[in-house]
Amino acid sequence: MSAIDHLLVVGVGLIGGSFALDLKRQGLVRRVTGAGRSAANLVRAHELGIIDTVAADVGIAARDADLVLLAVPVGAMPAVFAQLSEALPTDALITDVGSTKCDVIAAARAGLGPRIARFVPAHPIAGAERSGAEAARVGLFVGKPLILTPLAENDAADVARIEALWRACGAEVARMDAREHDHVFAAVSHLPHLAAFALMEELAGRPQASTYFRYAGSGFRDFTRIAGSHPEMWRDIAVANRGALLDELDAYIAKLQDVRALLQQHDGAALERLFARARAARREWIGNRNHE
Amino acid sequence: MSAIDHLLVVGVGLIGGSFALDLKRQGLVRRVTGAGRSAANLVRAHELGIIDTVAADVGIAARDADLVLLAVPVGAMPAVFAQLSEALPTDALITDVGSTKCDVIAAARAGLGPRIARFVPAHPIAGAERSGAEAARVGLFVGKPLILTPLAENDAADVARIEALWRACGAEVARMDAREHDHVFAAVSHLPHLAAFALMEELAGRPQASTYFRYAGSGFRDFTRIAGSHPEMWRDIAVANRGALLDELDAYIAKLQDVRALLQQHDGAALERLFARARAARREWIGNRNHE
Repeated sequence: MSAIDHLLVVGVGLIGGSFALDLKRQGLVRRVTGAGRSAANLVRAHELGIIDTVAADVGIAARDADLVLLAVPVGAMPAVFAQLSEALPTDALITDVGSTKCDVIAAARAGLGPRIARFVPAHPIAGAERSGAEAARVGLFVGKPLILTPLAENDAADVARIEALWRACGAEVARMDAREHDHVFAAVSHLPHLAAFALMEELAGRPQASTYFRYAGSGFRDFTRIAGSHPEMWRDIAVANRGALLDELDAYIAKLQDVRALLQQHDGAALERLFARARAARREWIGNRNHE
Repeated sequence: MSAIDHLLVVGVGLIGGSFALDLKRQGLVRRVTGAGRSAANLVRAHELGIIDTVAADVGIAARDADLVLLAVPVGAMPAVFAQLSEALPTDALITDVGSTKCDVIAAARAGLGPRIARFVPAHPIAGAERSGAEAARVGLFVGKPLILTPLAENDAADVARIEALWRACGAEVARMDAREHDHVFAAVSHLPHLAAFALMEELAGRPQASTYFRYAGSGFRDFTRIAGSHPEMWRDIAVANRGALLDELDAYIAKLQDVRALLQQHDGAALERLFARARAARREWIGNRNHE
């Protein structure tokens, strides 16, 4: 695989920074420029050897980029596409790491216009407990899923090029339709985050909240761990994946209402069957995970 | 503190077995008899030195007991109270470890009649990931909360006696009104369990469940950990604490509907504020826990 001459990373955090580090380590990129909102973070990324240059302006930095990685919150992507549209060389590729895909693709179409074919959408599934350049590390993506949601307009060689870079980082690449992607992640990631935020916020708003929290144990701790996630990032994801997430919220609320009805009717047998199905499904899932 | 001559443990599992082990280790009990549904479990408890004798019949074993500990699922308690009612010496004490208190107290009143004053209700907060006599161990309760919900009929000396035994096991004893107890645990324990069971069961019932589970990550894993809990035990808890749990389900469903409305209205700012309140509350809670 030929090396990339100039990689521009917009948003040098856990994901963007780790991608740059992995490619550098393997000699797959010659020069990395970093762009982003926080000058302090970019200076730190430079100190850590993640980037070689700090871009004063995305448009200017893009002029001789071969590949641009968008690793900003999904709500910030439309503005970046607009900045790239004018500046980017016609043969440069763009990819992203957004947790939602339909809205990012829509923003790319709006921002890039006829050059949409150069954008290959992607989503690496890597934990985001920590953030910023400080959190970036070599090997973050090893064994982690990376989902490509190619566009009809994409050239097969370009998609293969992006796939090869992620494979070089150790990711296990799958391809999926963007709509399917958004439905799957609404169910297994976005909804649980909203459900954990909602439970925590509801309890915290009660007059006697401190008594409640005092007796919360390890089950509560694990159930609400993702309620410690970043509010702005999750605001963007929720709004970006609004359609699928509304469907998931409706399905979950309906299931909770079913549970409520069984309890109201004193139907212990049906509750036990529901709990048993849940436990069996979880055990099977955990078994498959450990097996991989 | 004078030692108990004869302790009868009904249900020699993680909790009942660990209580017996701790008291034995400290010379606070001379003889332990075990009773329960599973003969195999009782034989194992005997092999492990948790109990000295296996009871063929709760009523017969109770005839010379000084203290009876009820450590069976809360749904099985009414039958045990009825068996104890006739057999127990008039000066014997009874206590329990049920996760719900109002219903256990009601069952005790029905079963024990005028001897209700001899029953001191209690709830140790100790993880129950594993079960059976095999899971019992010395020191399980060290630093864990133990909640007493004394009755108006209790003699203060009897409550103090039960409290002293749990303190000897290392538990941090608090007293609470039974109704308050049930509301607090409905919120911080029972509702999260139902919410995790519901999410897991809803997803598992979909035609494309395997695709969904394939992309579920560590956030999903922690959120659903308690969906691996014991279906029968949780059926009993849900039914036993039905009133408080219905209130909690209503509050949670209402909060999820608030979240849904904000999303429907595209109100990202309000969503971000809600997420931020949840994160702040969780960080404060975790900080207090780690500080203890």
